[in-house]
Amino acid sequence: MTYDLYIGDRLFSSWSLRGWLMLEKFGIPHQTHLIGLYSGTMAADMASLAPARLVPTLLTPDGIVVGESLAMAETLAERHPDTGLWPADPASRATARWLCAEMVAGFTALRGQCPMQLSHCFVGFEPSDGTLADLGRIEALWAHARQVSGAETGPLFGDYSLADVFYTPVAARIIGYGLPVSADNRAYCEELLADAAVKTWRDQALEVTYDPFPYVLDLEQTPWP
Amino acid sequence: MTYDLYIGDRLFSSWSLRGWLMLEKFGIPHQTHLIGLYSGTMAADMASLAPARLVPTLLTPDGIVVGESLAMAETLAERHPDTGLWPADPASRATARWLCAEMVAGFTALRGQCPMQLSHCFVGFEPSDGTLADLGRIEALWAHARQVSGAETGPLFGDYSLADVFYTPVAARIIGYGLPVSADNRAYCEELLADAAVKTWRDQALEVTYDPFPYVLDLEQTPWP
Repeated sequence: MTYDLYIGDRLFSSWSLRGWLMLEKFGIPHQTHLIGLYSGTMAADMASLAPARLVPTLLTPDGIVVGESLAMAETLAERHPDTGLWPADPASRATARWLCAEMVAGFTALRGQCPMQLSHCFVGFEPSDGTLADLGRIEALWAHARQVSGAETGPLFGDYSLADVFYTPVAARIIGYGLPVSADNRAYCEELLADAAVKTWRDQALEVTYDPFPYVLDLEQTPWP
Repeated sequence: MTYDLYIGDRLFSSWSLRGWLMLEKFGIPHQTHLIGLYSGTMAADMASLAPARLVPTLLTPDGIVVGESLAMAETLAERHPDTGLWPADPASRATARWLCAEMVAGFTALRGQCPMQLSHCFVGFEPSDGTLADLGRIEALWAHARQVSGAETGPLFGDYSLADVFYTPVAARIIGYGLPVSADNRAYCEELLADAAVKTWRDQALEVTYDPFPYVLDLEQTPWP
């Protein structure tokens, strides 16, 4: 009973990282299939999964195609209720769902200006007003999550959950572009990126070379933490 | 055990309509509170619900604030499993979640060019290429839903579900702006708008007058169906 997960380039595809973490971090058996997001073969690679057309897409062991990340998360949580994908406490669970839905719906300035890249950290990057507003909103949501859960540090709702999965690529943007957040939130971001599964993903991502590299900024670079 | 739902102007707030239908159509006790979306008092009206800042926002009987529509839907479905918010069949349910998540994440061209308004129908409106692409995608998703569920007409998954709730404001855009879809899909849109609950909502919406009316197009108008 293995799930099939179709992903894009690990170095850049933030939603693919989320999709993989929902399976990998919660011990759900799966195999991944790489789709040609940057090589231009995406449409052909995904033809059998239509009308799914974006990565990640999930194929369940019983043949159901799920083409949106939040629908994948809920489908997995329903089928694997003992794996702790959502927080156990009802208030934390409702709030975690809110944070994940707001991630799906928004933060377009941050996502547009700072595409996820797991290669290196930029120094001197200047976030736009829209990006700063998105960061402020993200910090407000994280503070609310911690108020509801009582978790002062570490995963937002105490135990690692889908909320941490959904904000891991945000952490990669904050660290990768040196975006301004509180010291506590920076520590949370660094902790998300230090996760063993995330490190495995990044190691696999770095096995692929890009020429030219898609995201070039005329800025000093420092190594990834 | 009554839910409190905070909504914006009924004539224009497509997400408020979704939030209300999730409660009203499934027999879940609730009371609505009107927030000053167009009158400019929204921030003050919602201060007690922070960090929720958009309509609709749900307050559960046990005091949990949920500030995103899809999180509201999942929270209600979990708490009221016998009301049929999601389709009972697993494949239909996963697919319905996909359709709802794609509604949350996308269709920005359609949503930007054709704000929901339940007042009248425009004649001769010219959709942009982006809006036409969104419509094509919506029709592909509806066709997929019907293939999975086997429901050739009527609600997408046989019985009325959250998928129909999430696409009711899309139906209002298709009918209100005269957007091109297949005859079968037009009939589905007209059926969604002919729903007794939707008609009640629109009747309440029309009790409010706007001067000036926010969405004015230099086009012929015909009555709402």
